[in-house]
Amino acid sequence: MLFAVRMDVTIPPGLDPGVRADLVAREKEYCRELQRSGIWVHIWRCAGQYANISIFDAADNEALHRILWELPLFPYLDIEITPLAQHPSDLAAG
Amino acid sequence: MLFAVRMDVTIPPGLDPGVRADLVAREKEYCRELQRSGIWVHIWRCAGQYANISIFDAADNEALHRILWELPLFPYLDIEITPLAQHPSDLAAG
Amino acid sequence: MLFAVRMDVTIPPGLDPGVRADLVAREKEYCRELQRSGIWVHIWRCAGQYANISIFDAADNEALHRILWELPLFPYLDIEITPLAQHPSDLAAG
Amino acid sequence: MLFAVRMDVTIPPGLDPGVRADLVAREKEYCRELQRSGIWVHIWRCAGQYANISIFDAADNEALHRILWELPLFPYLDIEITPLAQHPSDLAAG
Amino acid sequence: MLFAVRMDVTIPPGLDPGVRADLVAREKEYCRELQRSGIWVHIWRCAGQYANISIFDAADNEALHRILWELPLFPYLDIEITPLAQHPSDLAAG
Amino acid sequence: MLFAVRMDVTIPPGLDPGVRADLVAREKEYCRELQRSGIWVHIWRCAGQYANISIFDAADNEALHRILWELPLFPYLDIEITPLAQHPSDLAAG
Amino acid sequence: MLFAVRMDVTIPPGLDPGVRADLVAREKEYCRELQRSGIWVHIWRCAGQYANISIFDAADNEALHRILWELPLFPYLDIEITPLAQHPSDLAAG
Amino acid sequence: MLFAVRMDVTIPPGLDPGVRADLVAREKEYCRELQRSGIWVHIWRCAGQYANISIFDAADNEALHRILWELPLFPYLDIEITPLAQHPSDLAAG
Amino acid sequence: MLFAVRMDVTIPPGLDPGVRADLVAREKEYCRELQRSGIWVHIWRCAGQYANISIFDAADNEALHRILWELPLFPYLDIEITPLAQHPSDLAAG
Amino acid sequence: MLFAVRMDVTIPPGLDPGVRADLVAREKEYCRELQRSGIWVHIWRCAGQYANISIFDAADNEALHRILWELPLFPYLDIEITPLAQHPSDLAAG
Repeated sequence: MLFAVRMDVTIPPGLDPGVRADLVAREKEYCRELQRSGIWVHIWRCAGQYANISIFDAADNEALHRILWELPLFPYLDIEITPLAQHPSDLAAG
Repeated sequence: MLFAVRMDVTIPPGLDPGVRADLVAREKEYCRELQRSGIWVHIWRCAGQYANISIFDAADNEALHRILWELPLFPYLDIEITPLAQHPSDLAAG
Repeated sequence: MLFAVRMDVTIPPGLDPGVRADLVAREKEYCRELQRSGIWVHIWRCAGQYANISIFDAADNEALHRILWELPLFPYLDIEITPLAQHPSDLAAG
Repeated sequence: MLFAVRMDVTIPPGLDPGVRADLVAREKEYCRELQRSGIWVHIWRCAGQYANISIFDAADNEALHRILWELPLFPYLDIEITPLAQHPSDLAAG
Repeated sequence: MLFAVRMDVTIPPGLDPGVRADLVAREKEYCRELQRSGIWVHIWRCAGQYANISIFDAADNEALHRILWELPLFPYLDIEITPLAQHPSDLAAG
Repeated sequence: MLFAVRMDVTIPPGLDPGVRADLVAREKEYCRELQRSGIWVHIWRCAGQYANISIFDAADNEALHRILWELPLFPYLDIEITPLAQHPSDLAAG
Repeated sequence: MLFAVRMDVTIPPGLDPGVRADLVAREKEYCRELQRSGIWVHIWRCAGQYANISIFDAADNEALHRILWELPLFPYLDIEITPLAQHPSDLAAG
Repeated sequence: MLFAVRMDVTIPPGLDPGVRADLVAREKEYCRELQRSGIWVHIWRCAGQYANISIFDAADNEALHRILWELPLFPYLDIEITPLAQHPSDLAAG
Repeated sequence: MLFAVRMDVTIPPGLDPGVRADLVAREKEYCRELQRSGIWVHIWRCAGQYANISIFDAADNEALHRILWELPLFPYLDIEITPLAQHPSDLAAG
Repeated sequence: MLFAVRMDVTIPPGLDPGVRADLVAREKEYCRELQRSGIWVHIWRCAGQYANISIFDAADNEALHRILWELPLFPYLDIEITPLAQHPSDLAAG
């Protein structure tokens, strides 16, 4: 089941650089693990923004919530979710 | 070059049903041609909305503009565009 | 899987009264069928508004989309969807 | 008398972790007591958000206000209230 | 139980003048009846606007909804409701 | 001359508790004095919000400004003002 | 007593040209009479907009309301009002 | 050439009182000098707000920018600018 | 003196095709004349939108207003204006 | 390929003046280098705002992203991007 998710990142300027670097590194690793497991299907940088647009394939809303809640950067994210369905014009729809 | 595009459709209730059906059919065919040519990379229905979220792969802004401007439903669309770049956490980024 | 859905209704003043009455009657019947089948779990009127807040239990996003898209009043609805998950403070969460 | 209430939580990043843990624990206990007494009828997590959508059954506006004002997390909540009435399509409406 | 209600009126310019005059007359009579019965406690014109701010004293949300829903101008109103409680600084609070 | 005034209070979490208690006490006293003098005609708590809706009877805009500017909590208030006039449906309008 | 008033004009494209010309002519005459009487103190065109920013000197809110309500273009205006007071830096404040 | 300018002031609560008093005093002096030179044509307090609506007469956009940029309170201002033109109904328009 | 101007075009679907074509042709000619005279310095299409971002070089606000007011499509435009000044980082600033 | 970019700057008042001066100087140098290389085609100050409107000529979205991400002031910028295409009324369009 697919969801479009936009995440805008706002890390407070005063955050300790070491803490910040660690957070960003853990976020990257977490993101890559979910890509390998087929859950985080796409991630694109919004050009010129500290933000991304992603597509998640989660079993259900519960699973999507756990995945996002565990993001290392979660406390610094503004998250917007759009549940997706198959589009009738999609070639894959047969 | 990728773009995320959200299209919200508002067809006036008074539009002639035949005209409407023709427009929707032409939109579908146009969309499928662009999928076959690799330009309209993804299209998803926003669940519960007369709207879609799409990913386009266009040569440049000029090409993106021509593609959207020629949409049969263009006069009834509210279109929002986000230019995309590669995300550093993307596995495909190596 | 639960979704909170708010629907705001805007029926154009010029709509034929008979057409309108028929639409509203079909909407009511459709709603009641979905309540009987356990899909439309709750429906409340927003006091003083031509609007409702509802809870749906749908198999997935695809199912939710089909249910909403088939609403007789769909062309006159402004729909807002919030995917829901279990809350850790919910007694039912054990 | 029912109210739909959405609460968005914004705890300042600099809050002492012990203070924060205590607040969250007291909030949970307070919430569960109100569930047991039949006042906090439903609580759902908004998937991917530090937020909930709840249904309260309060004697009147005065009672609703006291309940919300005493929430341990009240100073960190953005609260939106929708007074609810019975919907004519509700099966329970006979 | 008190509610603050703001009503913004938008009557379509093309409405038949006779129909319009009748609606406005019925709205005025309805409003005055509710004032006499102690339900519509205050009504003020927002200066320079086709709008009013009112205070209602209704038994509950259900009663408030019925009162507003029956307003002759209801289809032309944009209504915003704020449930009210006693303020601790109110002299009447003892 | 009447004005509807909505005040939303945002006291910074870090404010010294003693300073805060003093401010709130002075605000309450100031509010009650203005009630006694017939200027602060009504004050209601917005249920579930740290906010109030009030009606002021001030000689003119100048007087209203001085009254609000001197509120002990003024630096922490977001204030919205609606000038009021008599409504033609008001029974008091004869 | 001064008020800043912004008026945005939206005349429906389908309005009969004769009716429109008459409305605009009456609006102009009405405006000039109020200028002569010292009530409509200033009127400026917002550059590039069908809109104006004006300063009114009215006896009270009641008077301001009557003046605006009688504007020939009132049904086509979106009006925003800001009550004004003397500024402490104003040279005229002595 | 005239501009309407609205300035909303937000001085951080933690600013040193001496620094603040000095800023406000310099702002007042700067404002009065510009009044004397005919550039800051009007300044009104928005009643009940830490804000003003002003009219500037500047040679061009460049001059307006320099004037506003040099405001002692500039870092604490939210500024909104509306370029003005002569209104055809203005008596001064002949 | 430079201004950035964004124009969003909304031509009603019901407009007579001949009238529309004539309007668009006159708009194009008007635009090109102003380009030739050095007033309409730049015009870019916003990709995927019936909108443009333009730079005007006008003698003053009065001149800018007349230019925009005379646009053949003016009744169908939503216009947003930003007065511009020289930027200190601009190489042309010496 | 052209993009219109608006940047609003919000430097926290508490930032060390030396750090701030260094940032602003590096931003200026970076901006001028990009002007010399033909990438940062235009930069204008928004009059009365700590903001600019710029036109970039970048090879693609990827290039635009890298350019903006490397801005010394990036963490303090609110950036809005509009992809541009040639306008059919542009004289340069032949």
